[in-house]
Amino acid sequence: MTTLLLQPEPLSAQAFAPYGEVIELSADNEIRTINEGNCDRHHDLASLDTRLEGGSTAISIFVSKPVNLPFRIETMERHPLGSQLFLPRSGHPYLVVVAVGDDLEAANIRAFIASPLQGVNYFRNTWHHYCLPLEGESEFFVVDRVGSGNNCQEQTLPRDITVLLERH
Amino acid sequence: MTTLLLQPEPLSAQAFAPYGEVIELSADNEIRTINEGNCDRHHDLASLDTRLEGGSTAISIFVSKPVNLPFRIETMERHPLGSQLFLPRSGHPYLVVVAVGDDLEAANIRAFIASPLQGVNYFRNTWHHYCLPLEGESEFFVVDRVGSGNNCQEQTLPRDITVLLERH
Repeated sequence: MTTLLLQPEPLSAQAFAPYGEVIELSADNEIRTINEGNCDRHHDLASLDTRLEGGSTAISIFVSKPVNLPFRIETMERHPLGSQLFLPRSGHPYLVVVAVGDDLEAANIRAFIASPLQGVNYFRNTWHHYCLPLEGESEFFVVDRVGSGNNCQEQTLPRDITVLLERH
Repeated sequence: MTTLLLQPEPLSAQAFAPYGEVIELSADNEIRTINEGNCDRHHDLASLDTRLEGGSTAISIFVSKPVNLPFRIETMERHPLGSQLFLPRSGHPYLVVVAVGDDLEAANIRAFIASPLQGVNYFRNTWHHYCLPLEGESEFFVVDRVGSGNNCQEQTLPRDITVLLERH
């Protein structure tokens, strides 16, 4: 039996770069002042990748139940045909759990804590856990692929490995 | 001199149908329960129309200054090459001012008040005013077209017509 304790790290664009993009207000964005000076447009912040095999881009709203820590990571998923973007609107932080690699391996899993003002865009094929809001039921705008084809793969960790997401 | 007083109406999918779509949680949506029962996905709520003339879909964040009422409507815009979607995340209501017709005419202008939980997707070529948040500076996730071509047309009302957006 192996137990891995996973400490959530603060989410930043740099730390998250192997997995996807962080969507947030930042002085590093391209900022265009529009609307007669009444609006700053932080321009084109995500690389949407939804058009493989005739796919198209969909806007959905997810309403997700919160989790309590510690939380055991058992199964993760990835989308081989498209990116998937989450933009929170409920004012709660949430946990982002990801892994690189072709197969899901416990040693590759990392966890980040996203602020209520940070969105994430998982690259196509990035292993990730489903959305784990903290503090309360949370809503997310989601931008992902719709279309034919199998766009969801799941893998479950071996039963003798426990990955436990700890309190941050 | 003509003065038109414009009363904002409550925003609803039905009333807004000639201009675009309302993006909101609703029992009328296709709702899929996912993530082992921990999430309701309100599925595919908008008709994105961003791919004319080689365009693609961009995610941006707008940070918009609030307006005080009464507010004079002078110039409106439309996007001939793509839809434009606004999803609020700041908890403030905002005003949505639109018009049908090939040319902007004062008599065609209507105003809606959107709740902080309602997004709007302007159809391609719908005349609309730039974003008019109430109560405080407001942030919106915006989904629209990027690409070459002229995707913004503006028209200004005749100087002898005053369209005044009234307090709701």
